[in-house]
Amino acid sequence: MNACIVAVGSELLTPFRIDTNSLLITERLNAIGVDVRLKAVVGDDVDELVQVLTQCLRVADLVVCTGGLGPTEDDITREGVARVLDRPLDLQDAIVESIRSRFAKRGMTMPDINKRQAMVPRGATVLENVNGTAPGLWLEHGQARVVLLPGPPREMTPMLETVIRERLAPMTAGVALFRRVLRITGRAESDIDSRAQPVYGQWTSRPIPITTTILAVLGQIELHLTAVAPNRAAADEALEAAVAELQGVLGSSVYSTDGRQLEVVVGDLLRGAGWTVAAAESCTGGLLTSRLTDVPGSSDYVVASVVCYSNRTKVEWLNVPEELIAEHGAVSEPVARAMADGVRARAGTNVGMGVTGIAGPGGGSAEKPVGTVVVAVVTDSDARVKTFQFFGSREQVKYQSAQAAMNMLRLMMTAHV
Amino acid sequence: MNACIVAVGSELLTPFRIDTNSLLITERLNAIGVDVRLKAVVGDDVDELVQVLTQCLRVADLVVCTGGLGPTEDDITREGVARVLDRPLDLQDAIVESIRSRFAKRGMTMPDINKRQAMVPRGATVLENVNGTAPGLWLEHGQARVVLLPGPPREMTPMLETVIRERLAPMTAGVALFRRVLRITGRAESDIDSRAQPVYGQWTSRPIPITTTILAVLGQIELHLTAVAPNRAAADEALEAAVAELQGVLGSSVYSTDGRQLEVVVGDLLRGAGWTVAAAESCTGGLLTSRLTDVPGSSDYVVASVVCYSNRTKVEWLNVPEELIAEHGAVSEPVARAMADGVRARAGTNVGMGVTGIAGPGGGSAEKPVGTVVVAVVTDSDARVKTFQFFGSREQVKYQSAQAAMNMLRLMMTAHV
Repeated sequence: MNACIVAVGSELLTPFRIDTNSLLITERLNAIGVDVRLKAVVGDDVDELVQVLTQCLRVADLVVCTGGLGPTEDDITREGVARVLDRPLDLQDAIVESIRSRFAKRGMTMPDINKRQAMVPRGATVLENVNGTAPGLWLEHGQARVVLLPGPPREMTPMLETVIRERLAPMTAGVALFRRVLRITGRAESDIDSRAQPVYGQWTSRPIPITTTILAVLGQIELHLTAVAPNRAAADEALEAAVAELQGVLGSSVYSTDGRQLEVVVGDLLRGAGWTVAAAESCTGGLLTSRLTDVPGSSDYVVASVVCYSNRTKVEWLNVPEELIAEHGAVSEPVARAMADGVRARAGTNVGMGVTGIAGPGGGSAEKPVGTVVVAVVTDSDARVKTFQFFGSREQVKYQSAQAAMNMLRLMMTAHV
Repeated sequence: MNACIVAVGSELLTPFRIDTNSLLITERLNAIGVDVRLKAVVGDDVDELVQVLTQCLRVADLVVCTGGLGPTEDDITREGVARVLDRPLDLQDAIVESIRSRFAKRGMTMPDINKRQAMVPRGATVLENVNGTAPGLWLEHGQARVVLLPGPPREMTPMLETVIRERLAPMTAGVALFRRVLRITGRAESDIDSRAQPVYGQWTSRPIPITTTILAVLGQIELHLTAVAPNRAAADEALEAAVAELQGVLGSSVYSTDGRQLEVVVGDLLRGAGWTVAAAESCTGGLLTSRLTDVPGSSDYVVASVVCYSNRTKVEWLNVPEELIAEHGAVSEPVARAMADGVRARAGTNVGMGVTGIAGPGGGSAEKPVGTVVVAVVTDSDARVKTFQFFGSREQVKYQSAQAAMNMLRLMMTAHV
């Protein structure tokens, strides 16, 4: 079964609001094997809603609408659906009474305008709203199903759960969508894809087909795998095998196959080894340590860090030799190494990390342009220093630098596994 | 002029991702008087994209597409648009060369697959991508305009600005939407709204009507003012007056009326005073200094910071008396004050900030529950210490703590103005 999700409301076409209901609806539909093919947001314009709904019924056999079920003239979903399905709108006395008693319970009189909420396209089944006045509606039209849900999440959610459980789940054959996300860092999207595509390209024709989407996010690449399977056990088996195949061609650049962020992966490695860490941050300005400490329980392994934005603090706080800075410059491999050594010694940790670079937008030179970043990682048994060239805004250079530092530590800690 | 915005990408039809590009695009289009009538999200399916685009061209004279311009087979926007507009796709050598040289600059060879990004529907104008390999495209088709922009925001945004300025703004005339954002911190949404509503409630019936939306974001409240005016000068006059009225009732809790973030406001104050700053961060784990150093040029006033996650580093690095921690606990006003004093003395700065607290989810007690945070700010002439109770996840507590620390410094530095 394929679905379209339509959100109705002019406020969702302003720069201030976004339709988030569709995320929950997608998750619940996917879980019973319904694929979402299209999402649309329409304003309070009945002609445009009619056009969009007509289009949706061509693409999908299920249309889920949210919003536009309120009592005002702006609320046009009922009318739009009635026109598309070519049915008259009838006033249902039972709904009027239920809205009236809802008002009465609060000691209020129902305004006449709320009668609009009792107008129902002929043949619709009314879905009870436990948290508001707008009832939902369920309509069948040939092979197609149209569900109308209210916009406010607390009214929409319980109604959605009921519709899924009582009406939609029994109609699906038991096939569902299951997902897995691989996260990768340190390589370009095109490089990843040229290695991965020959592998995942084979999967769509398997007994349990898996589709793959590649997604480049700042400082990392994600591969989203979606299996269509009769049950979770079959999906898990197929997805585990698929993940292993991808790991085979992508190697150690895959840092997570279970949704963990890089700071969580690194934190788990540190905790597993019983190691502690300290960082000397110049270019990242605290971001590296902030990301490490975003992880609950990170106080077990993060001891301390120093943000040394001035040369003086590099020298006085971290014992970086002044001559080293004079000779090589603050952004250089020897200085990054001395920063990592210095903070490791002062904090008494197993791991010391040093990051120095030019975050921009100012401060670049021909020899060391903006985005030049040097990372050093020193552990009890190993030391590595690497120079990177990043691109983007100041914040993006900082983010990629923190990402690179954590990834270097990860690779050093997993090299012997 | 009416517009539709279409986001292309199967990942945007999963429960994990949402199209946020359309918010910025809407804002920029509104600013030149273009109304957004419809937003759609389509997966990587060229037939469905063709159907949606056909529909959009019926509703609107401008279609803005984002995403699907990458080099892989998933990237189907170019092909979909070519089919809808009935034009062949041509390989443009100039684009191949520009992508090749972009790879070469990074010391890499362009993979063959990237040639797909140089396929262009005949008659299209190529829009330069300063931050990536995917060029944008501008197409005219009768009265209609179709704009293709890449999906990643950092690639999309500069291209959008250029298209608006050079192509779309000259085509529009007359009444436009103008906006202003007030940012407020340190007060609850309901408190702000009960003060502001009697003021902004008057504005909708004025000659230049202004509508107001209140938006609660983590650690701050935003008031979005939208004026409908024949030109910028008239809008500016009306909006300036409106902003002044709101400042009258909201006072010093308004930290910005010109879009500046709190870290920029604080940075401008420090630079204006010729002051330097250092921070001792426990609970925020580096986030406070990271946000301060997100601002270009912040090395002028940020000297150094210490993330002191262990008590030992508080004592050894910042001279916090051991007895103070033993007597009051690490999360206490005396310790926060000693941290601020200690880092200020060690770094030799005008301002010292200390943040200590329980970010959670573990570590809370009945007396000091999760979210208890103490902030101390010491300057050349003043010192303040304050205990806060925040709510939310670990990351949310960190963010609100950094926000509170910067706001304390802002209020101390503006008290005498």
